[in-house]
Amino acid sequence: MKGVIAQINSRLTVVDLTHQIPPQDIAAARFSLMNAYSYFPVGTVHVAVVDPGVGSKRRAIAVEFAQGFLVGPDNGIFSGVLSQSPAIAAVELTNLNYWRTPQPSKTFHGRDIFAPVGASLASGVPLKELGQEIDPASLVKLDIGGCKQTTTGVVGCIQYIDHFGNLVSNIAGSYVQGKTWSVQAAGLSIPSCETYNDVKVGEIIALVGSHGWVEIAINSGNAHSKLQLDSQDTLQVVLT
Amino acid sequence: MKGVIAQINSRLTVVDLTHQIPPQDIAAARFSLMNAYSYFPVGTVHVAVVDPGVGSKRRAIAVEFAQGFLVGPDNGIFSGVLSQSPAIAAVELTNLNYWRTPQPSKTFHGRDIFAPVGASLASGVPLKELGQEIDPASLVKLDIGGCKQTTTGVVGCIQYIDHFGNLVSNIAGSYVQGKTWSVQAAGLSIPSCETYNDVKVGEIIALVGSHGWVEIAINSGNAHSKLQLDSQDTLQVVLT
Amino acid sequence: MKGVIAQINSRLTVVDLTHQIPPQDIAAARFSLMNAYSYFPVGTVHVAVVDPGVGSKRRAIAVEFAQGFLVGPDNGIFSGVLSQSPAIAAVELTNLNYWRTPQPSKTFHGRDIFAPVGASLASGVPLKELGQEIDPASLVKLDIGGCKQTTTGVVGCIQYIDHFGNLVSNIAGSYVQGKTWSVQAAGLSIPSCETYNDVKVGEIIALVGSHGWVEIAINSGNAHSKLQLDSQDTLQVVLT
Repeated sequence: MKGVIAQINSRLTVVDLTHQIPPQDIAAARFSLMNAYSYFPVGTVHVAVVDPGVGSKRRAIAVEFAQGFLVGPDNGIFSGVLSQSPAIAAVELTNLNYWRTPQPSKTFHGRDIFAPVGASLASGVPLKELGQEIDPASLVKLDIGGCKQTTTGVVGCIQYIDHFGNLVSNIAGSYVQGKTWSVQAAGLSIPSCETYNDVKVGEIIALVGSHGWVEIAINSGNAHSKLQLDSQDTLQVVLT
Repeated sequence: MKGVIAQINSRLTVVDLTHQIPPQDIAAARFSLMNAYSYFPVGTVHVAVVDPGVGSKRRAIAVEFAQGFLVGPDNGIFSGVLSQSPAIAAVELTNLNYWRTPQPSKTFHGRDIFAPVGASLASGVPLKELGQEIDPASLVKLDIGGCKQTTTGVVGCIQYIDHFGNLVSNIAGSYVQGKTWSVQAAGLSIPSCETYNDVKVGEIIALVGSHGWVEIAINSGNAHSKLQLDSQDTLQVVLT
Repeated sequence: MKGVIAQINSRLTVVDLTHQIPPQDIAAARFSLMNAYSYFPVGTVHVAVVDPGVGSKRRAIAVEFAQGFLVGPDNGIFSGVLSQSPAIAAVELTNLNYWRTPQPSKTFHGRDIFAPVGASLASGVPLKELGQEIDPASLVKLDIGGCKQTTTGVVGCIQYIDHFGNLVSNIAGSYVQGKTWSVQAAGLSIPSCETYNDVKVGEIIALVGSHGWVEIAINSGNAHSKLQLDSQDTLQVVLT
């Protein structure tokens, strides 16, 4: 993909956001993009290729939003970004002139469609040149499970596990801000604090992580392997 | 290596092709280069450092071919590229003026020889400045095992396993194009299709991958761990 | 972090030194920096974020030394570099104008403090603008264990394990230069040689690695998993 981008415009700056998305894990890719896009310069083109449906009828899309552009498969990978910053316009990538080849591989659209389209967009080609306009409301949304209010707090689930093994929930940090709270998960009551260092090495804590979500962590340890909790597992924030 | 390159010419664009080659696996590096070089701009310098023979008498080389240059150890790592696009000229890297130091480490020529030579080549130094000309026919070729015609098809072997666990054979996709075919491997008869999504999640399929070789895959799964097949293992394409 | 850097100055060249430091392993990060900084151009800003104490009272610092600048937590991560090339000046990062936000995350100063400060420094902001001057002698040093002279040689310990499984000691290669020597470790007497290829595949050897330290390796194998030695374990160089 980087070679294809350089063939089109060797002056573009290419940044790897992550290569640690588990294979086919659209939810993890959605989360990573949602938590990173706002830190990039306005006008950045974000190309994402977690694409288990490649070669099927899923659409290839490009989307314009306030901070830049999104290019990739229409499988919900962008629905986190767009839940925070709505789409302004969207196209299905039907203009073969911007593909690497009119006969792309059936298993790697990243190289043959998304990389060259992203490079063209970043080089000034207008969005509407790239294909047929589609209704932004028609873009696939990924259901990551909602949060449910209870009498004592809110029940949510784990939406992401980072490479430290921290368990990131889908409960927004704003919900607990200024409150006294703890988390119930894996049969434990986990006290909240502000930073990994508020407790001894090896202790389990709940805190609001750098991306703004309630998370469970272990100071200098791996909460994922220790607690045996996984993506989609339930946890509860209890206000006290 | 990137520091050394930047010391010589900080304006060069450096792209990491992969850091996922298993230690000392020249065949995997050969495969990765062979399937990537044509997607880079003409004139690109490809530096490769899978170099188990570092410090021994294996030659350090630079090669010119139609699409650019190759710099690294003469251990067969470039023999895939050169089987598709022959060498125009080759030198042994004997001109110490282009090394980082005339007394290079005996265990890391990537940093001390290949990176600085590659940076010089990319900055306009002529190939023949870099050392003594050698006969391109003398470059080491890596034998990855051939394919053998049978009465019903062709027998080949697995030459690469990608990070999804897809098992890539050494049988060219052109061999099966337009035909009805299946693969026999691991005691199974595996039907062919065009894309991972032609079957249900978890089903085993054979298809022509994005690099143009017959491969065995599992939709949203890992064929390598499931089938317990490994590099060099045999498989057979059967035409029907 | 790369997004934040690009927001400040999109013309900066960003190089990833490594993403393979085990979580919270300051000693491994210290070692990697110490062995890499001298290969980068003079004036390079090295930003390091292995930061288990993030959010605690550990200081955030920037340091000027002969070859460039260091930005990160004051936890000893830079003490290897500074043992070779002393600090010229140091500041605590107290000037909030150079942070991404005056209210940084309590768990990710890499994004909110170190990346923007590093980008500013690399863009020409003077060190002393970034905060309050501190005494370089007050910077935290990481104790990696010393070497002890014996009647037959020197006893040291393993300070780093690279991704090939090579066991790198804290005994300088200069100690054995021009001498006949072997290593005692894991109950074995390991002969020394100059390069991995001086022995057969699978044999255990001691040599001076590319970074200048005595190391234990296996030709085309993994000494770490084979010998079951780990960081901090003891080894002895015996002169004969």
